[in-house]
Amino acid sequence: MLSVDEVCSLIDREVRPGPPVRLPLALALGHYLAEEIRADADMPAFDRAAIDGYALPENALPGWYKVVGEVTPGMPPFSAPTSGTAVKIFTGSALPGSGVGLVMVEETESEGQKVLTRVAASGRHVRARGSQAKRGQLLLAVGTRVNPGAIALLASVGVTSPLVSNTPKIMHLVTGSELVGADLDPSAGFIRDSNSPLMAALIAEAGPGTLTQRRGSESVDEAVDALESFDGDMLLISGGASVGAYDGSMQILRRLGFAIHCSKVRSRPGKPLLFATRDRCAAFGLPGNPLSHFVCFHLFIRRTLDIMWGRVPQRMIRVHLDGDRPPTDPRETWWPARVSAEAGSLIAKALPWKDSSDLTGLALANALLRIGSSPTNGMFEALVFGNFVP
Amino acid sequence: MLSVDEVCSLIDREVRPGPPVRLPLALALGHYLAEEIRADADMPAFDRAAIDGYALPENALPGWYKVVGEVTPGMPPFSAPTSGTAVKIFTGSALPGSGVGLVMVEETESEGQKVLTRVAASGRHVRARGSQAKRGQLLLAVGTRVNPGAIALLASVGVTSPLVSNTPKIMHLVTGSELVGADLDPSAGFIRDSNSPLMAALIAEAGPGTLTQRRGSESVDEAVDALESFDGDMLLISGGASVGAYDGSMQILRRLGFAIHCSKVRSRPGKPLLFATRDRCAAFGLPGNPLSHFVCFHLFIRRTLDIMWGRVPQRMIRVHLDGDRPPTDPRETWWPARVSAEAGSLIAKALPWKDSSDLTGLALANALLRIGSSPTNGMFEALVFGNFVP
Repeated sequence: MLSVDEVCSLIDREVRPGPPVRLPLALALGHYLAEEIRADADMPAFDRAAIDGYALPENALPGWYKVVGEVTPGMPPFSAPTSGTAVKIFTGSALPGSGVGLVMVEETESEGQKVLTRVAASGRHVRARGSQAKRGQLLLAVGTRVNPGAIALLASVGVTSPLVSNTPKIMHLVTGSELVGADLDPSAGFIRDSNSPLMAALIAEAGPGTLTQRRGSESVDEAVDALESFDGDMLLISGGASVGAYDGSMQILRRLGFAIHCSKVRSRPGKPLLFATRDRCAAFGLPGNPLSHFVCFHLFIRRTLDIMWGRVPQRMIRVHLDGDRPPTDPRETWWPARVSAEAGSLIAKALPWKDSSDLTGLALANALLRIGSSPTNGMFEALVFGNFVP
Repeated sequence: MLSVDEVCSLIDREVRPGPPVRLPLALALGHYLAEEIRADADMPAFDRAAIDGYALPENALPGWYKVVGEVTPGMPPFSAPTSGTAVKIFTGSALPGSGVGLVMVEETESEGQKVLTRVAASGRHVRARGSQAKRGQLLLAVGTRVNPGAIALLASVGVTSPLVSNTPKIMHLVTGSELVGADLDPSAGFIRDSNSPLMAALIAEAGPGTLTQRRGSESVDEAVDALESFDGDMLLISGGASVGAYDGSMQILRRLGFAIHCSKVRSRPGKPLLFATRDRCAAFGLPGNPLSHFVCFHLFIRRTLDIMWGRVPQRMIRVHLDGDRPPTDPRETWWPARVSAEAGSLIAKALPWKDSSDLTGLALANALLRIGSSPTNGMFEALVFGNFVP
């Protein structure tokens, strides 16, 4: 029986990212860069006006000037104003030549083709070429999550199909003779399948992945037949709740040629966890109850996806516990919790949790508290989830 | 000129959510519930075995028992074991009748059709009917974000098309004669349009919305013609950088029949902000530079979407500042920052930011620091974003 940390080390050792792919920019949101991005030109590429006003020879003193032209954004460069003249200019326009200063429109009065400036023309309102970044400068490192800011930066340097890490192809087989679809009214002894929609949502919220799901009370033979042609990156088998179903998952994986690295983990919930690999494909056999799915996803499957995405696995953070400490257990326990920010500190509240089939608190959970080792300075470790906002 | 808080109050006053809709469960992830969800039956709906083992009359003492049957998950209820008999049972199965106790398989030895129990049969390993929730009990409140835990809970109570808040229809018009598409090499004086992909990504990351985008250096007449048939929930106009373009956005909104509630906000960046409404449609006119887009989105557009989604607008949190305090300005300043969790505290680092066209730091930003009023206990207010993970 391995510890959670030992299973994580196994995952780190066995899982490798697949080959990166190019995606159109609009589809790259939430993916991870597999190439570094450098400035394709100085940023900005030319001296730009940061105000609406007038361009004059640099340091031209206050006084009357003849307006000899006008530059608007997107106009090709204009010739520089000579002594005694000014060029009207709008924010974002290229400066007319070098040796030019600006006066804000608010510091002027215009009369016909003449303008009166009340301050000297200066470079204060010029966004100089290369002031944000020089051509070739590193803008985004490999492994950066493509968030909206990165999308804007990629567009601004003309990268419309960035190289991003592999999008894992995932197959999820849900077994369990007690399950019916969520759209059915279960008769006595049956329950609705919540593991299929739960796993689909966990993967969708975590990041890129294409998922195929299959549910049925299949024999090992039938499952092996159905899965034999799958050559994706991750295979998930949700077992039924019982030991027999667990044995079935192990047999399926063995017959498909997977090497089993772990069959039990010393954690609560999630004890009978299978972790196996075959070439680039990682497989997990999960205990049938939803909370085990939830916890095993965040501890192990998310970590495997992180590696496939080419990013550093999510680290645990320390939080202060408000309220009662959840009960300890010989096994390390991962307790659903809600973490929030109060006056600059991270405060966790343990959520009610009856047993491993209890889903009622999960919608409020944004973290799992690690209950086992003694708290350090009264703080516990916590793994927070995707859309955590304190 | 209004303060940021005043604009937020205006938004709270003027924006109303649209009518809710039903979505298939698989598409409801990230939406907000517009109905409360109650247990459709006791949860669990029947007494279930939480272990693999044997069912015996409750309190049956250790000893030899005749095994008279076997219940597996999904089997219809089995008759209760009579005195001297046991029924083999697997985790997740319905208990055979009432007045039944369980013994874990690990506490037994079996021999042919007989089993030896080493402990008394008890209710300890029974998940009693209704122990997680009683029929009719509130499980999810109106306004709950449909996260993976909520998806699992909805599936388990048979809600396969939940009522969720309106998905706003958004139109984004990007003007600016200096802009070319991100796939082009801009000639002198032009820049690539990063505002279109930035806004699309900000909306996609924040939550549900269907977006149409249009870019062109159009006249006011052309823009009015193009927008006249739009009857969605939100209209965004990205102006060019200059005052002329700003005036154009205001003219477009007026001619489309919008009431202008705000034309300038005392914030840096984002000063020339337009906020207008017409019936259920909210409109924003944004200054042309990307950082203003970024900041106005998080301060104002996100808040408007929050209201349309039927949820409480995101609150600001307090964070400790590590490193130099960004420079103050007569206007309240919103400075890009990176917030992380260190030993139970939230620590913000201000990111480099040259000017309002500077995108280079945005990919690292997960918060905006409010720089203006004096810090309280050395802490600043911060607005953190969607996928913030400390």
